[in-house]
Amino acid sequence: MTDLTPQVRLERAKEASRATAALTSDDKTRVLESIAVALEQNAPRIIEANAADIVRGRESGIGESLIDRLRLDEKRVSALAAAVREVAALADPVGRVVGGHRMPNGVSLEQVRVPFGVVGAIYEARPNVTVDIAALALRSGNAVVLRGGSAALESNTVLVAIMREALESAGLTAEAIQTVDDFGRDGAKALMHGRGFIDVLVPRGSAGLIETVVTESTVPVIETGAGVVHIVLDESAPDDWARDIVVNAKVQRPSVCNAVETVLVHRQAAPRLIPLVASALQSEGVAIHGDDIVAGLVSNVIPATEEDWATEYLSLDIAMKVVDSLDDALEHIRRYSTGHTESIISTDSRSIERFLAEVDSAVVMANASTRFTDGGEFGFGAEVGISTQKLHARGPMGLAELTSTKWLARGSGQTRG
Amino acid sequence: MTDLTPQVRLERAKEASRATAALTSDDKTRVLESIAVALEQNAPRIIEANAADIVRGRESGIGESLIDRLRLDEKRVSALAAAVREVAALADPVGRVVGGHRMPNGVSLEQVRVPFGVVGAIYEARPNVTVDIAALALRSGNAVVLRGGSAALESNTVLVAIMREALESAGLTAEAIQTVDDFGRDGAKALMHGRGFIDVLVPRGSAGLIETVVTESTVPVIETGAGVVHIVLDESAPDDWARDIVVNAKVQRPSVCNAVETVLVHRQAAPRLIPLVASALQSEGVAIHGDDIVAGLVSNVIPATEEDWATEYLSLDIAMKVVDSLDDALEHIRRYSTGHTESIISTDSRSIERFLAEVDSAVVMANASTRFTDGGEFGFGAEVGISTQKLHARGPMGLAELTSTKWLARGSGQTRG
Repeated sequence: MTDLTPQVRLERAKEASRATAALTSDDKTRVLESIAVALEQNAPRIIEANAADIVRGRESGIGESLIDRLRLDEKRVSALAAAVREVAALADPVGRVVGGHRMPNGVSLEQVRVPFGVVGAIYEARPNVTVDIAALALRSGNAVVLRGGSAALESNTVLVAIMREALESAGLTAEAIQTVDDFGRDGAKALMHGRGFIDVLVPRGSAGLIETVVTESTVPVIETGAGVVHIVLDESAPDDWARDIVVNAKVQRPSVCNAVETVLVHRQAAPRLIPLVASALQSEGVAIHGDDIVAGLVSNVIPATEEDWATEYLSLDIAMKVVDSLDDALEHIRRYSTGHTESIISTDSRSIERFLAEVDSAVVMANASTRFTDGGEFGFGAEVGISTQKLHARGPMGLAELTSTKWLARGSGQTRG
Repeated sequence: MTDLTPQVRLERAKEASRATAALTSDDKTRVLESIAVALEQNAPRIIEANAADIVRGRESGIGESLIDRLRLDEKRVSALAAAVREVAALADPVGRVVGGHRMPNGVSLEQVRVPFGVVGAIYEARPNVTVDIAALALRSGNAVVLRGGSAALESNTVLVAIMREALESAGLTAEAIQTVDDFGRDGAKALMHGRGFIDVLVPRGSAGLIETVVTESTVPVIETGAGVVHIVLDESAPDDWARDIVVNAKVQRPSVCNAVETVLVHRQAAPRLIPLVASALQSEGVAIHGDDIVAGLVSNVIPATEEDWATEYLSLDIAMKVVDSLDDALEHIRRYSTGHTESIISTDSRSIERFLAEVDSAVVMANASTRFTDGGEFGFGAEVGISTQKLHARGPMGLAELTSTKWLARGSGQTRG
């Protein structure tokens, strides 16, 4: 497809979005099944392309953890196909009537869910995002334009080619799935400036990538942000809840955005909770970056700097700080939180209700692990990402968040008086 | 307030938004009533400031229609206060539970409406927007930062000062209403780049203003766009519906975005409908810009150029074109519509359903006047604007569209397995 400009790809996606918007749920199920089958049948082709990415990655010295995120083996290709089938099984949001009434003059008004049109996605590293986003976009009746990470270029090229073949074999135009990977930086630029062609752009990846997309785009963006996630251990926090929830929120999967990064401990509870929680963390291999009080209560504490409070470690590191009051904890969160998820551990209903009311984050919890901020856990079946902005979607996004609405008005000659 | 930078105003608004978010509905009703009273009591002060704007406007030679939009007399000040009271009477969207369930592990999940935080507005000419937007923002629990048109600078300065005084007299911080008018272009720039301070920015005004705000902003924007609004007269369109709806949609208030700008007439119906509709329009003083066929059927037709199809006249002008088929009409709309409102006049259910399904606009109508696209007509009680984007809000926006949601999770020690 290298004979085209990125703009032509956007135009083709827009044109194809008319066809995807007209698909019934049954059509979409059929199209997605044909993609799942194509992925399975073409596993060797995918793995071969992926091997080339991995060789290139090794040569350019990207770390083993990135290599692992990049890798597609037979099992992972099967998982890709399974994920597509899961999306195919989700309820179709398109056509759902979400509002409406009859106007006093008799005009009937109906607000219905419709596809956005064209969903753009800019993301990094993992090639499974290529398939996930395409499946979610199609299930919600959208065409999609993808821009994946250059490290996964060969894998993504083959995945897109296979999905496009599957679209055609299912009787839909291949143009409903586009990539601009082959245009490098110009491809991303075209997406970010695709006014009139890209109806919504979803960046997924590092804070730097998201910042670039948000500030540079002239198309509407859903910011799926970083998580500098806090847990507050209130004066009344029970030992077991404090320990179990902090350990779970840090250790169960440290590399994801809903993992806790900072623990704020009420001064009155510090001597009781900090040794307990810290030793549980340390026995799981977590490095503690703490303030002076923490360092006085626990051994092997790395002195925390200003930078620690603002850091999304995404690793077995945690920042720990003593606060004088709930007010101080709220002030710290206002200053350093990225508005993703915060949780308070407390049995004092006044503290809990203040925390739930005053913390301005997508998900605010009491006495639960921050790891629950997740589309699957929230019952959405699949996750487009976790929005940290307030416009359109906030928190875990399901399929409905990839749709817009339109108003249908049916009259019989009414005019306005 | 000229000793401050625009950024300081944004910071103060953000700080004040914590106070506005915590207000109960009763508090907000009381605050708005105190604003309404203050506007009434300070009518002479407002009218005096407004007179200075009008003198300046006359000197700089802005036209009489702009002067009229600018003018505030005693009656209009009363209308301002009345509008604030109408907003005060609207149901408060904040705190409404819009979703939720109990997770299988017992964690209770609740999705509730919360204020955005700080609403920014950039608008032109009419000083009543200053009061309208401030009232709507406060009713929905938001602080607001205003940037009005320079033509209304004196009026807006006094209106903001009066509203701020009223906030204080009602026991709320004055900082919940800010203006950056005194910083000119820098004020608008600060709003557009106020990441972390402006949660949503609403531009209201000309296509040029909106384009600038959309392309320059790094904060989330709700585009309240221009309306190149179409009516399609299908082959089956009844004479009376065609004539009455087109005339109403053009003439009842030509200067607004939901007024029709282009009429597309099915070739088979052209000899029957065009003379009828055109003469009704011409007898109301409408100038018809038509293609050759229209010119052959009606006298005094101005030859339409490519530019006419893309023009939002906002005046007693209308473009009229003959199309060969519904497909041609849909193609024309795809090309020239701004996605605001389109209506088909037809009794053929196949044409109607295709039109409703395929036209990708905020409001799609059959057999009704496009003038019904309006927050008041839709039953919202007040209107923030009409969104022509697909993200967050589409079509007329009510108070709920000035809110976001957040998820509250209440557990009892749950961790993720």
